Amino acid sequence: MSRTPATEAPRRLHLNVNILHSGFVPSAWRLDDADPRAFVDVEHYVRVARLAESAKFDAVFLADNAAIIDQIDFRPITALEPTVLLASIAAATTHIGVIGTASTSYNEPYNIARRFATLDHVSHGRAGWNVVTTADLPSARNFGHDAVPDHAQRYARAAEFTELVKALWDSWDDDAFIGDKASGRFIDVAKVRPVAHEGRFFKVQGPLNLPRPPQGHPVLVQAGGSGDGRDLAARHAEAVFSASQSFEESAAYRRDLNARAAAYGRLRGVQVLAGLTTIIGATEAQALRRRDELVDQIPWRYSLARLAGILGISPDRLDLDARLPENLALPNGGNGNHTFFHATLAEARRGGHTVRELIRTLAGGGGHRVIVGTPEQIADDIEHWFKGEAADGFNLMPDALPDGLEAFVNGVVPILQRRGLFRTEYEGNTLRSHLGLERPGVRVGATGTELERT
Amino acid sequence: MSRTPATEAPRRLHLNVNILHSGFVPSAWRLDDADPRAFVDVEHYVRVARLAESAKFDAVFLADNAAIIDQIDFRPITALEPTVLLASIAAATTHIGVIGTASTSYNEPYNIARRFATLDHVSHGRAGWNVVTTADLPSARNFGHDAVPDHAQRYARAAEFTELVKALWDSWDDDAFIGDKASGRFIDVAKVRPVAHEGRFFKVQGPLNLPRPPQGHPVLVQAGGSGDGRDLAARHAEAVFSASQSFEESAAYRRDLNARAAAYGRLRGVQVLAGLTTIIGATEAQALRRRDELVDQIPWRYSLARLAGILGISPDRLDLDARLPENLALPNGGNGNHTFFHATLAEARRGGHTVRELIRTLAGGGGHRVIVGTPEQIADDIEHWFKGEAADGFNLMPDALPDGLEAFVNGVVPILQRRGLFRTEYEGNTLRSHLGLERPGVRVGATGTELERT
Repeated sequence: MSRTPATEAPRRLHLNVNILHSGFVPSAWRLDDADPRAFVDVEHYVRVARLAESAKFDAVFLADNAAIIDQIDFRPITALEPTVLLASIAAATTHIGVIGTASTSYNEPYNIARRFATLDHVSHGRAGWNVVTTADLPSARNFGHDAVPDHAQRYARAAEFTELVKALWDSWDDDAFIGDKASGRFIDVAKVRPVAHEGRFFKVQGPLNLPRPPQGHPVLVQAGGSGDGRDLAARHAEAVFSASQSFEESAAYRRDLNARAAAYGRLRGVQVLAGLTTIIGATEAQALRRRDELVDQIPWRYSLARLAGILGISPDRLDLDARLPENLALPNGGNGNHTFFHATLAEARRGGHTVRELIRTLAGGGGHRVIVGTPEQIADDIEHWFKGEAADGFNLMPDALPDGLEAFVNGVVPILQRRGLFRTEYEGNTLRSHLGLERPGVRVGATGTELERT
Repeated sequence: MSRTPATEAPRRLHLNVNILHSGFVPSAWRLDDADPRAFVDVEHYVRVARLAESAKFDAVFLADNAAIIDQIDFRPITALEPTVLLASIAAATTHIGVIGTASTSYNEPYNIARRFATLDHVSHGRAGWNVVTTADLPSARNFGHDAVPDHAQRYARAAEFTELVKALWDSWDDDAFIGDKASGRFIDVAKVRPVAHEGRFFKVQGPLNLPRPPQGHPVLVQAGGSGDGRDLAARHAEAVFSASQSFEESAAYRRDLNARAAAYGRLRGVQVLAGLTTIIGATEAQALRRRDELVDQIPWRYSLARLAGILGISPDRLDLDARLPENLALPNGGNGNHTFFHATLAEARRGGHTVRELIRTLAGGGGHRVIVGTPEQIADDIEHWFKGEAADGFNLMPDALPDGLEAFVNGVVPILQRRGLFRTEYEGNTLRSHLGLERPGVRVGATGTELERT
């Protein structure tokens, strides 16, 4: 079988920073240097983004929820709306990509197509959209529902939604703009078309009311771990934000995802960016001490409630000095977040942890991998995962921000650069160029078809 | 009858600039100095905003549509989504307010509450929301409708929507944030409440997932000219963007609006900011020449189609050298834009214009007042309207941008300042302070009640 040119291109390591307000660890805001108000301070986000840009990161990433879904008596949450915040970040940076999360369950496709196209215009081609279906009940209750819409239905809506958003981005040809002062012709209206979409969930006439985004399509990112989620990612995503606790799980996930993508004719595959929390010290002992100090500042009742929430059980069933209960089933009959459930269980089994040890290992988090060590140890781990094809890059969630990212940028990035794993300069100006993704051509025809415009 | 302290405070003139892409006149993009791509160039908007800020304007204003509703073969349209664009503008300015338009017919209240609250946070208290119900068919067809929702229903939804958005902004007390590192208390959850709204159009549990906006509420702006529109403005708006062709009409509109506001117990009334297009020359003859040159660059078939659209008739019924047809009725059985229909008819009757003269007088526009003259003449007109209480200020729509605003800033603003009508420095840092508006306290209770929290 002949190899496509795409697979012969050298793989490049990608690094994003997920600006989780004060940092990944729930107690990060309590550090001496931390500003507790950082979660609503635009200057904090700009500072972190500039630091990431100074290290030539691919992108900043903003998670999102459409409700309060954590215990705000103990910790900050994702609060500021991502597209507005990312526009502020884009105005203060020049190269780094800006990826924001938005839900397909609680938005209209026309509005999302337009907001991310606008973000792509104002950032001159640096926008990405992280497509989520939103699994929690509090969000559902902010949009007229009494219960979370069914998992399969959410993903069916997400698939139609994403297809439609792409069609709206393609409703203008790249060369539709004329702007000829002499003749007075402004737009070539033959190159602007309705989408005339009529599907199961949406009926949208189009066209979009703004020219095609600089990148053609803002980069599509997804994070689904369930079968439906993987299928959506395989069909549409150009990068996934994954949550795997072990090299083997991540490698298997990456193989599965790329096989699914190939089945959709997407031979270039999908970039797997593994979620990774780093806790860095000059020595391993110092790093472990930092982790323990951070974890000791999280009230146990917070951590127990959070872990119980991920597992879909009552906190009463958790005993700090015992292992997890047996026979746990997906929360809410499977109609919740599969990814964090599986990743948390896997880590508990792998380590044989008590609940207390599990919470410590997860640094008070729930699902994402936490690595504690020296810059050299972390660089070794990243190299192992990257070269072993368990990941194409990492969505970093430093323990605390900005100082956890500073430690990474000053300690780990130079090692990765010396080893030839990570760029020392940006080669282009768009998020697509950082991620090595082609600019998509315009596809016309009914949404859902794959007809390339000639 | 005793006068309230509010009415004794000296009235202050307010000036906004409506950044209508290349400018108000449809041919503005064809001027020698114009960049035809300005409508999608964030730097253009930033340049105009900085110019307005240098002249101490109250705010920049962005209109919006959720569809292509003008003839893009001849002219630019509002394209970039306002909240994302305003975040870019806010990042490049320090004092000027940022007011954006968003539709209550094609959005969810939770999302709008969140986006404008975020804009208020990232701009440190400079955000305003222009509430519109969106009267056009192309927009309706981008959101699953075959026809424009009924006028009364749109306004009923808008009233419930606006009430609910305010309730969501009030779902956090101003002092809910603690952030005490020693005790580990982050938010006082007793000061964060659900809204538990269940109305005719919406069911939203709340609370909002971010702290109360710096201004309490972003400033509420409205532009309705119909009875329903005036009622919505009287109940909720702190400023209206009006369209009146004559001093008498505007004064009558302002009296009517303030009487309606008083009936809702709002004794401070509503700031009336009249739409005003300026075409400025060193002499009146020069200004008229500029207008005619601009109008001559607009194809007549464009202007006829646009005027016919506002009047809800076929362009065949318009004869350039005759007056408007008699017995015109509100377009679409009254289910469209009342404001521009009435204002255009009023100007045609007042001037006794032929269609050609009417289009020239309106500078190719449709509804908003156009004033052509020297800086002195324009300053006189503004002073007359302001002192005569026909308006509290103006939403300026310069003929072309940025040069039409430069002419206003360099020519008209110094005259207004010399006459003591307009500020020479900002007195505060928020849009509320520029507009002389109080910061609203938190109101709790079922939405729709007016119970002040004690």
